[in-house]
Amino acid sequence: METLQQNKDTHMSADDVKKYDKEYNMHSWSAQRDLDPLVITKAEGIYFWDSNGKKYFDMSSQLVNLNIGHGNRKVIEAIKKQADKMPFMGPAYAVDVRAKLAGKVIEKAPPNMGKVFFTLGGADANENAIKIAKMFTGRFKIFSRYRSYHGASFGAANLSGEPRRYICEPGIPGFVKFFDPYVYREKIKFRNEEEASGFYLSKLREQLIYEGTDNVAAIFVETVTGSNGVIIPPDGYLKGIRKLCDEFGILMVCDEVMTGWGRTGKWFACNNWDVEPDMITFAKGVTCGYVPLGGVIVSKKIAEYFDDNALMCGLTYNAHPLACAAGCATIEVYDEENLIENSKNMGILLGKYLEKIKKDHISVGDVRYIGLFSAVEFVKDRETREPLVPYSKDPEGIMPSIVAMLKEKGFSTYSHESCIMIAPPLIIKKDELEAAMSILDEVLYSVDKYVKELKK
Amino acid sequence: METLQQNKDTHMSADDVKKYDKEYNMHSWSAQRDLDPLVITKAEGIYFWDSNGKKYFDMSSQLVNLNIGHGNRKVIEAIKKQADKMPFMGPAYAVDVRAKLAGKVIEKAPPNMGKVFFTLGGADANENAIKIAKMFTGRFKIFSRYRSYHGASFGAANLSGEPRRYICEPGIPGFVKFFDPYVYREKIKFRNEEEASGFYLSKLREQLIYEGTDNVAAIFVETVTGSNGVIIPPDGYLKGIRKLCDEFGILMVCDEVMTGWGRTGKWFACNNWDVEPDMITFAKGVTCGYVPLGGVIVSKKIAEYFDDNALMCGLTYNAHPLACAAGCATIEVYDEENLIENSKNMGILLGKYLEKIKKDHISVGDVRYIGLFSAVEFVKDRETREPLVPYSKDPEGIMPSIVAMLKEKGFSTYSHESCIMIAPPLIIKKDELEAAMSILDEVLYSVDKYVKELKK
Repeated sequence: METLQQNKDTHMSADDVKKYDKEYNMHSWSAQRDLDPLVITKAEGIYFWDSNGKKYFDMSSQLVNLNIGHGNRKVIEAIKKQADKMPFMGPAYAVDVRAKLAGKVIEKAPPNMGKVFFTLGGADANENAIKIAKMFTGRFKIFSRYRSYHGASFGAANLSGEPRRYICEPGIPGFVKFFDPYVYREKIKFRNEEEASGFYLSKLREQLIYEGTDNVAAIFVETVTGSNGVIIPPDGYLKGIRKLCDEFGILMVCDEVMTGWGRTGKWFACNNWDVEPDMITFAKGVTCGYVPLGGVIVSKKIAEYFDDNALMCGLTYNAHPLACAAGCATIEVYDEENLIENSKNMGILLGKYLEKIKKDHISVGDVRYIGLFSAVEFVKDRETREPLVPYSKDPEGIMPSIVAMLKEKGFSTYSHESCIMIAPPLIIKKDELEAAMSILDEVLYSVDKYVKELKK
Repeated sequence: METLQQNKDTHMSADDVKKYDKEYNMHSWSAQRDLDPLVITKAEGIYFWDSNGKKYFDMSSQLVNLNIGHGNRKVIEAIKKQADKMPFMGPAYAVDVRAKLAGKVIEKAPPNMGKVFFTLGGADANENAIKIAKMFTGRFKIFSRYRSYHGASFGAANLSGEPRRYICEPGIPGFVKFFDPYVYREKIKFRNEEEASGFYLSKLREQLIYEGTDNVAAIFVETVTGSNGVIIPPDGYLKGIRKLCDEFGILMVCDEVMTGWGRTGKWFACNNWDVEPDMITFAKGVTCGYVPLGGVIVSKKIAEYFDDNALMCGLTYNAHPLACAAGCATIEVYDEENLIENSKNMGILLGKYLEKIKKDHISVGDVRYIGLFSAVEFVKDRETREPLVPYSKDPEGIMPSIVAMLKEKGFSTYSHESCIMIAPPLIIKKDELEAAMSILDEVLYSVDKYVKELKK
């Protein structure tokens, strides 16, 4: 340990960084032995660089959080200013940036929204939304979908439908899963989006009745499913959920942790379908991760309820001043740089590239996109739509090898099941998008070749 | 909303801050209508100031997190430097400050410890420790104590024994509660600490057997109970838990979110009893809240298990670089300013003041202290030991009124049940401690008077 103590204020070599990392850090969602993490030394705009000077397009905005890109000076200066002034003050007190950011969030949220409860990230935003729904309704059942990820803590994991919830089971009583409007993978072929919505809503209605509508506190949906493959709801679906909620006194909660703050070409994804949820959970884009921050936006009606009823939520770092200062600056960046507009416009272009990729590559089953939020779904066979890797299993590491090929050529993203995520920073320009997408195009010929081999 | 938009970069008046706060922020653990939060505009060392210029001794270090006090320049400069360089990088990558902080944490942890998984705060540190215990042991039952608080998210709340868990019930299957070594409130009078430990350990052993020792993954204890009244374990208790865990293949997890990082006069509270847990959860003092950070320290044995088994834990802001930079600087401050030593020395002095207070005030039933971590427990009657307010109920707001009287005189802290917390920053000096404690002494005469009235 001498090296570390002696060099405490000096530069660490990339080798030392890797050595210490391997020795002392545990990394997420992996066995640790074979991990060989890149050492990252610089990041700027839509790019980052490893310790060998290799440059990467950040085509997933890290974990779909860096909407404004790396190294934004306005946000950095706001952090530095607040650090000088008062990095922390306990949640019981009023602090200028805390009050100001809450006001700004409500400005950008749908008009029915009233107040904000700030957390540290998306998982605890959802944790608190579950608790608020239970308090407000006095009911205990929580509906959410199988193809969903809401976070890894027990409440958020039990809300999640995908395998990352298993370690948090046996689960919390009252958490009920329903099916997603995953039209591409449905055995029924719908004539149009309205028909699809009608089908899914009728199944949901039936399930609500079987579970006892009076027991159901809330229906949680990722407005557009994120990690589990950018599943975009068919027209009429979200409005239908709103209607079901109104009919049965159930709260509608939109998880906009990934989709909020311009990702889909609107401030919040629910704006795309003119839906007003009762709560919105958010994180990522609000500060783009410069300082951790998340939160729950509640409707005026819910806010009013807590005027006279205790809000049984709390955390030491609720509405953290350093994070709130970063949040205020980040929202100003969205406005000043017209990033919501750019997300929409570049998203149209991204859609064109993706459609061409789908046409040109036999390994691509589907492409789904809205704003700068998109996924490419790989299949073994375009006719049968058999996924490239079976659900929750990829023993040969096919998807990681696609991600590695992309990374080798300077295109950074991540995979989940048979999909890769494409969600660059909202500041991306036309020529940058074109350059990145041509890397993807090139790599997909190797994937096509692999798929052809499989068929022999 | 015009005011907010127009003044986005300009100073907000205290009235505006309060107005926006009331309108848009939801505060923790309270009904909102009657909240009248102080507007805080400045903080330095062991003091903070409200918008009227009134100065407060921060005698709870906010939420027992500001061990190094407010406004530490070294930590602020480290934050500013990292903000300039790279505030965020995804958890899959190696980053200098991320690797360096993990090394520093392991340096300070007990010698059996191997690796760190970083989180954002104490709640998610505990969430992840529960998951790690389940993965490592393949068992699902989790033991923890009634007089405990481990956080407010579902896993952490179900781990907690006190009423803040109720909203997260019906609870997670397999979470089992046992009784605390709360000697002061026990009907049995023990001859010495060893006898007390023997009693509590025999009851715990019996309960483990009834629950099926092979089902139990972990026993979680706050090394010294925090929010629920600074309950200090009798000698032999923690060693006894270690022995029970070894006997039955159960993991011992010490929640050191409050007690870690010098609070009790040692780096970790478990050092006071020479105990090596299998995991330590921490938060607060590691960055003192300048940037949110928490984590789980795991033993070498557990770390080794995850070489070849997937760690099913993860969060976007795992090992956040800005937080890690703050953490590195904070640990250096502890070393350079000899704060662990000062906590021990000032703690001895604090103990003397508290013993005098107990002697002089009939409203004080017990005082408990270790390092700069202490509580004063109020009673209606010193003989019967009847608590000043019944468990989980204080309809007349007696405890808040004590806290308000203290605050009025410039002594800031908070209460829980019939206790108030006294846990100033570890940088406090003799004369400052003396000045603050004389305020407490003065206010307690009013509490004595109230208690005398009750008896009439």
